[in-house]
Amino acid sequence: MNALAEHVAAVPLVDHHVHGAFTVELERAEFEGHLNEGSPDPIPPWMTQFDSQLGFAVRRWCAPVLDLPAHAPADEYWQRRAELGVEEVTRRFLGGAGVSDWIVDTGYATSSLLGLEGMESASGGRAHEVVRLEALAEELALENVSGRDYADAFTARLAARAENAVGAKSILAYRTGFDIDLTPPSPAEVTLAAGRWLDTAGDEPRLDDEVLIRFGLHAAIARGLPLQLHTGIGDRDLDLHRVNPLHLLDFLRATPDVPVLLLHCYPYHREAGYLAQAFPNVHFDVGLGINHTGVRSVAVVAESFELAPFAKQLYSSDAWGPPELHYLGALLWRRAVATTFGRWVAEGDWSEADARRVATMIARDNARRVYRL
Amino acid sequence: MNALAEHVAAVPLVDHHVHGAFTVELERAEFEGHLNEGSPDPIPPWMTQFDSQLGFAVRRWCAPVLDLPAHAPADEYWQRRAELGVEEVTRRFLGGAGVSDWIVDTGYATSSLLGLEGMESASGGRAHEVVRLEALAEELALENVSGRDYADAFTARLAARAENAVGAKSILAYRTGFDIDLTPPSPAEVTLAAGRWLDTAGDEPRLDDEVLIRFGLHAAIARGLPLQLHTGIGDRDLDLHRVNPLHLLDFLRATPDVPVLLLHCYPYHREAGYLAQAFPNVHFDVGLGINHTGVRSVAVVAESFELAPFAKQLYSSDAWGPPELHYLGALLWRRAVATTFGRWVAEGDWSEADARRVATMIARDNARRVYRL
Amino acid sequence: MNALAEHVAAVPLVDHHVHGAFTVELERAEFEGHLNEGSPDPIPPWMTQFDSQLGFAVRRWCAPVLDLPAHAPADEYWQRRAELGVEEVTRRFLGGAGVSDWIVDTGYATSSLLGLEGMESASGGRAHEVVRLEALAEELALENVSGRDYADAFTARLAARAENAVGAKSILAYRTGFDIDLTPPSPAEVTLAAGRWLDTAGDEPRLDDEVLIRFGLHAAIARGLPLQLHTGIGDRDLDLHRVNPLHLLDFLRATPDVPVLLLHCYPYHREAGYLAQAFPNVHFDVGLGINHTGVRSVAVVAESFELAPFAKQLYSSDAWGPPELHYLGALLWRRAVATTFGRWVAEGDWSEADARRVATMIARDNARRVYRL
Repeated sequence: MNALAEHVAAVPLVDHHVHGAFTVELERAEFEGHLNEGSPDPIPPWMTQFDSQLGFAVRRWCAPVLDLPAHAPADEYWQRRAELGVEEVTRRFLGGAGVSDWIVDTGYATSSLLGLEGMESASGGRAHEVVRLEALAEELALENVSGRDYADAFTARLAARAENAVGAKSILAYRTGFDIDLTPPSPAEVTLAAGRWLDTAGDEPRLDDEVLIRFGLHAAIARGLPLQLHTGIGDRDLDLHRVNPLHLLDFLRATPDVPVLLLHCYPYHREAGYLAQAFPNVHFDVGLGINHTGVRSVAVVAESFELAPFAKQLYSSDAWGPPELHYLGALLWRRAVATTFGRWVAEGDWSEADARRVATMIARDNARRVYRL
Repeated sequence: MNALAEHVAAVPLVDHHVHGAFTVELERAEFEGHLNEGSPDPIPPWMTQFDSQLGFAVRRWCAPVLDLPAHAPADEYWQRRAELGVEEVTRRFLGGAGVSDWIVDTGYATSSLLGLEGMESASGGRAHEVVRLEALAEELALENVSGRDYADAFTARLAARAENAVGAKSILAYRTGFDIDLTPPSPAEVTLAAGRWLDTAGDEPRLDDEVLIRFGLHAAIARGLPLQLHTGIGDRDLDLHRVNPLHLLDFLRATPDVPVLLLHCYPYHREAGYLAQAFPNVHFDVGLGINHTGVRSVAVVAESFELAPFAKQLYSSDAWGPPELHYLGALLWRRAVATTFGRWVAEGDWSEADARRVATMIARDNARRVYRL
Repeated sequence: MNALAEHVAAVPLVDHHVHGAFTVELERAEFEGHLNEGSPDPIPPWMTQFDSQLGFAVRRWCAPVLDLPAHAPADEYWQRRAELGVEEVTRRFLGGAGVSDWIVDTGYATSSLLGLEGMESASGGRAHEVVRLEALAEELALENVSGRDYADAFTARLAARAENAVGAKSILAYRTGFDIDLTPPSPAEVTLAAGRWLDTAGDEPRLDDEVLIRFGLHAAIARGLPLQLHTGIGDRDLDLHRVNPLHLLDFLRATPDVPVLLLHCYPYHREAGYLAQAFPNVHFDVGLGINHTGVRSVAVVAESFELAPFAKQLYSSDAWGPPELHYLGALLWRRAVATTFGRWVAEGDWSEADARRVATMIARDNARRVYRL
């Protein structure tokens, strides 16, 4: 391994958008389901999700962590994984990721996931919280807040959570798409919308009201919190073409100077790079676009180095559940960066010193600056 | 050639979306016109369509099949082709493609093309039929079916054709685009729309009525036929941005479990790969995106291996007319796969056994499963 | 360097879309600002725009022109540049670009830029003018033309300018986007719109009236002028998704046979390539997509060689201001073409003679034909 690759392999990462790892043992069918981001359906019987770039990457890179040869067959992988048990598997993958700081979205399906402390003890890294704005609203719905009190209650709840959080996140991508009016709603609109939504929210509230989502976004901005936005790929709940980050142009033009972090972006990562050049406060990552493209992540990461200034890119895995994803995201990102930058250095386009410096910026320093770690 | 390349070169292909080869001699200007998919206009006098990636690929790979050196000049290529005559040229190219099964769209401009039997005898492979839904409607228009009888007549005609067909195809891309309501119309709507369309269809009927196109789609689905949909590039009749397969999201969410096959997809093949991950019944190919990008097909094919599980991709040439296209599609696909997988194997990301297995799935096995060959 | 690379390095270029170089000394902050195309804001204090692909390319390729080692630190680069002064710096970069003909958009912010004669004497090349249509309208507004006289005055002014111009350019991308009605307006509509716009245009008129912009487009077409259209990336004034050239489909279908030149196109260069295949009169370049992606321009240029016939592509830098951009555009294009074509020749896909021929077409011959140089 050359000096650049060694540097990239060793630099501790800030994984700036991640969820907890599972605390529960899985069935194989569940595990395979978690290798598919887009579909909530069972994997059909005539195929296996292991036959995908992510599945091949698991067999290539995760098998050795479980003492198997690279490319071990799926059946052997599964058997060995079950044998070691969730705690040992989690310890190995989280510890092996080389992540110094996990910035954790604590707002989604957390009952079977490690919390902040669990992530710290399993990995040896630090964990920081990001508040999911829609989840705050859904908490309030369960607490029987009235429409009239909603705005104050939301603001107070956000303030309380922000004490211990480094940023906020919105999943409006899943709830409304980006091609809507994203200006701040008036207080009267919020009261009206809150009354209507709270009345019908039920026992499993799901915030899909445009007015309240916009209110949440602007409440986070008003507090100066770095704002993460899911963009691009995700499960098929979202309309992918309606979460192209370009639809955020008007919103970004009107947003004051808080850091905005566009997550994933694939297949719109070039568009995200454009926005990161065009707005001083816009940053992005290729998140899910790394794990789910496996060996092709080298190409995806290379495409993410076009228009954006290097101070505007961050690393994330968006891992959720299987700790393979926490590990593999880091490994594939390092591999993509070492390969891509290595070629540019070999061909004389970049100096090696610059390559090391940029790798460190994206691995760690940009996130430290944005989240004031 | 290494073992993987040998395997990929030898594996018999199912070309799951193709048309017949010409039975007639062409003028050179016609031939050049057929190297241009997008434009119905004559090639301007100040250029030659041979000066394109497809034209260069013809000179590189097809010239040797006609006993010329690779890269033979266009004039020599044309002279030799004319000398050999359509039958010999067709026999060489179809036979040389290494295709065991042609799945033929028999619904477009077939008077100067080989039919199923002609394809079989010229190539030595088997031919299977796909029914073009819009062509069925246009047949009925010529038979003076009434608006009131249209739905039954269409259903009966489809049932009759489906006896000998392995799937159905819709070209709504050319007729309406995808950004319309694609739910099943009511019987009353169909009767009304049929009456209106049949009244004005004339001697050369062209189905462009949204209601009847939707009716045809859902009739095919109701029969359980694998459903091919033209998406992405084609001639400039279509609005390319309106045939991005992402506009099919609502349709796919509502479609029961029949295989849906997104054809071509370029430049939206990443979006197609997303849909193939997100829906268990969605499959895709890069069809026209192979021949028309020539040497760049290596990159296009590589991009098609990102999100989609490997069980969800198929091979097609979409060749129509010049048998160079039937041959070249197969050759370029093999070359792209051997190059791409070969690099991944050489760099240790994939095992060679996996690479051979995935190549065989896409070359043949996935299509056999989908079309029950 | 192999023979192909030598040929590509030596072929004189027609830079078919460019602006003048600065005549004034810059502050460093201004210079860095000009390395960012998308944002009008100051570069934030916690970053430098040198840390971008364009910045790295400046340090790699421009530093040696100023007698510094490749990859010289930004501070040294800036110091040396200031030391040499604007005239010497401009002479070196313009002279070093190897451009025989500059086709100059003279309609934007020209007070601090070299004019046609200045470009000629600094570079040793020839300069030709392209008339910016919106700028003509803005001239008329300052001359107190009435709404009733607008159409005639515009037509006369265009005729006068066209005497010495080789083409026209529209920036409707910045003013209206492409997803509007682009048919020719009626005379009555023009009179009405002109009256309204001229009344409110003020001292710094900015043509953003859809009717008058459409009128200008069709006036240029009526004169048979090659028509340049900004598409794709630019500053954040534009809605990037609304300047995807696919939104021009209806316009192109209705446009008679004058050359249309789609500029930049990134990240929609594949879509532009499609249009260049689908319409005999459509041409394109990847303009801004070269300089601003630095080393990645190799990939961007390679992607531009897919669907478009080779007679339909041109070279441009879209340089404006710092003469580094005039130089670097040429250098990076040559490098991308030599690398990409070189690989295809090495792998046997293209012949070397073809590669040289295609490079010359795009470097020079296609532009000569289109603009009748």
